Amino acid sequence: MSASDDLVGRFRALWNEIAPVGRDGRTGGYLRYALTEPELHLRAWFRDQAGRRDMPVTDDGNGNLFAWWGDPEAGDAVLTGSHFDSVPHGGAYDGPLGIVSAFLAVDALRAAGVAPVRPLVVAAFVEEEGARFGVPCLGSRLLTGELALERAAGLRDSAGVSFAEALGARPAGAQPELLGRFSAFVELHVEQGRALVETGAPVAVASAIWPHGRWRFDFLGEGNHAGTTRMADRHDPMLTYAFTVLAANKEARLRGAHATMGRVTVEPNATNAIPSRVTGWLDARAAEPETLAGLVAAVHGKAVERAHRDGTEVTLAEESATPLVAFDGGLADRLARLLDAPVLPTGAGHDAGVLAGYLPTAMLFVRNPTGISHSPSEWATDADCAAGVRALARVLQELACA
Amino acid sequence: MSASDDLVGRFRALWNEIAPVGRDGRTGGYLRYALTEPELHLRAWFRDQAGRRDMPVTDDGNGNLFAWWGDPEAGDAVLTGSHFDSVPHGGAYDGPLGIVSAFLAVDALRAAGVAPVRPLVVAAFVEEEGARFGVPCLGSRLLTGELALERAAGLRDSAGVSFAEALGARPAGAQPELLGRFSAFVELHVEQGRALVETGAPVAVASAIWPHGRWRFDFLGEGNHAGTTRMADRHDPMLTYAFTVLAANKEARLRGAHATMGRVTVEPNATNAIPSRVTGWLDARAAEPETLAGLVAAVHGKAVERAHRDGTEVTLAEESATPLVAFDGGLADRLARLLDAPVLPTGAGHDAGVLAGYLPTAMLFVRNPTGISHSPSEWATDADCAAGVRALARVLQELACA
Repeated sequence: MSASDDLVGRFRALWNEIAPVGRDGRTGGYLRYALTEPELHLRAWFRDQAGRRDMPVTDDGNGNLFAWWGDPEAGDAVLTGSHFDSVPHGGAYDGPLGIVSAFLAVDALRAAGVAPVRPLVVAAFVEEEGARFGVPCLGSRLLTGELALERAAGLRDSAGVSFAEALGARPAGAQPELLGRFSAFVELHVEQGRALVETGAPVAVASAIWPHGRWRFDFLGEGNHAGTTRMADRHDPMLTYAFTVLAANKEARLRGAHATMGRVTVEPNATNAIPSRVTGWLDARAAEPETLAGLVAAVHGKAVERAHRDGTEVTLAEESATPLVAFDGGLADRLARLLDAPVLPTGAGHDAGVLAGYLPTAMLFVRNPTGISHSPSEWATDADCAAGVRALARVLQELACA
Repeated sequence: MSASDDLVGRFRALWNEIAPVGRDGRTGGYLRYALTEPELHLRAWFRDQAGRRDMPVTDDGNGNLFAWWGDPEAGDAVLTGSHFDSVPHGGAYDGPLGIVSAFLAVDALRAAGVAPVRPLVVAAFVEEEGARFGVPCLGSRLLTGELALERAAGLRDSAGVSFAEALGARPAGAQPELLGRFSAFVELHVEQGRALVETGAPVAVASAIWPHGRWRFDFLGEGNHAGTTRMADRHDPMLTYAFTVLAANKEARLRGAHATMGRVTVEPNATNAIPSRVTGWLDARAAEPETLAGLVAAVHGKAVERAHRDGTEVTLAEESATPLVAFDGGLADRLARLLDAPVLPTGAGHDAGVLAGYLPTAMLFVRNPTGISHSPSEWATDADCAAGVRALARVLQELACA
């Protein structure tokens, strides 16, 4: 058996340990919401894996975990890792691949007899997807202080449980001293598109994260009986919503941007009732901030026009907005040369996008045969995952061992 | 105080007894689902009101209640009444107005010294809206045998509780002997449109119920990441759904029919995920069966066309279909002359529409100032409600006392 085959086998063995956790038997997707039972199980698994490698684990009081190879107080540490939590019925790879690969990279360095000259740290960030408490990258935003402590503590899930209650304590908030002990962060992640399929390479280095955000459209009409209300007498907000969905798609295509309206709530949501209110969320992303702003303004304009025609009202609220993140250009170029890997932008937000504002940060992407993500079909071959581990080990050796 | 004012006062007093039951403080709408606590409370109130009037109560083993003024075994009985259950966040009047008015009409006949020569019966039918178990007019369809017993017993609510469990027994099904003891049914109901506002009359007589039904559209696409999936690579079923919503509206307007898509479910319904599946329900109604069939076929055709463009799939399932109900023409004309009231069709289904296939049946509508129904804004003035009671008493006197 070659060393390469061996790594594929070791990847598969470690991967199998977590593959069943939080998997929904019906959809095959994962329900690994932050600080719920499946994610707590994965956090326990993280501590166990760290323990097996003699890596003491610290936490930052915000729900983020750090496993240290080397002295936690030494400073100049190189950070890697990702997150365990998933979107509803999400895929297996988004997040966990970065943590599993980090532990295997540690093993690979040790097997090669390479020792870090500065600490090497594996992190598991909490609530990256925002699927439970509504704010993506909650853990990294708390660590950096980007998110006000009061707002974070008061965030509640759909059952009314607050983030502080789920955490078991009021979050600690910004940890500048801890952050100052890191000299770089490298997050490995499954690719969420098909660019690597087209380039033929198993691993890429990230150049930038597109500016992106979430906007809530509330469409207000007049609830009424579906059978007896004449069409001319209606104020049906579902019509305004439907028109806005189609407008968002069209406006994004015209601009080479991305727009999605994949979440909707309806009151009263009954077959024989014209709704009184429809709420739809717009997820929009573009390469340049001006394009993104123009896209959202255009969709809003179309919604307002149609609301006038439907006799409804529409209000728009920005729920989150993330500016363009350009990863450290020097670091990206250095890693791309080291790995002979292509450099690609992405439309997805990541903890690396948050940390990039505070320390030199890079991302590695592992090829996804279908490009599908946030879905049970999200996938990478074991061979490409092993290539990802090798690439990460090489990067960590470059950054932490030389 | 005039007799008229007195009736307004008596209406308001009896109405106030049930007005708070099942009312949601946030929306002002009612959550009176069949055989849940609020509706069970109203059923107990029904038995109490019947007892106060020395009217023995029987039930038909299907959840329908009957309060008898006169010998339940005598035959040739005149039936009136309606239902207590509501749509989600529905109005106060749809259903309960017919029961409260029936008890007040009994009081009015007694106060006037009028005695029935054949039994006069007040009914409370179960699950008229279909909001809990999915089948409208469940009680009257069971009584008449229109709904197979096996299907009814197995219907389940969203929490998995079966109709038989909610009822506390397997339903009894068709009761032809009981049905044969009724010679006529008159249901009083709040109007669910604005025709009476335009005619200036407080009460109307129904001519017919439009043929109508419910169709489920399942739109299947490919779940994926909202940020990273190129627009050209998407198979987004929300687009096909949105197009179908707009097509249903347009096709109904072109035909003078009614079409509503007021209920939708989305998987996974997350802001940053392209949905894998969207399910939308079409409620459609028209004056003639051919128009209705043409409408549904046209909407389906548009959905299929758009699905081809979106790279999605669409399937259509008929969930319920109710043919045209023409109320007894002789009875409607007789009551319209008696009351000097206009005669109007309606787009809404009612227990009267089911019973019309088995015995001479009529409906009275009470003016609704806004025309709004199935909504907290559903409303009638106390004066018009009193006019409704007077009209119903006059009709019952004509049918049961002469």
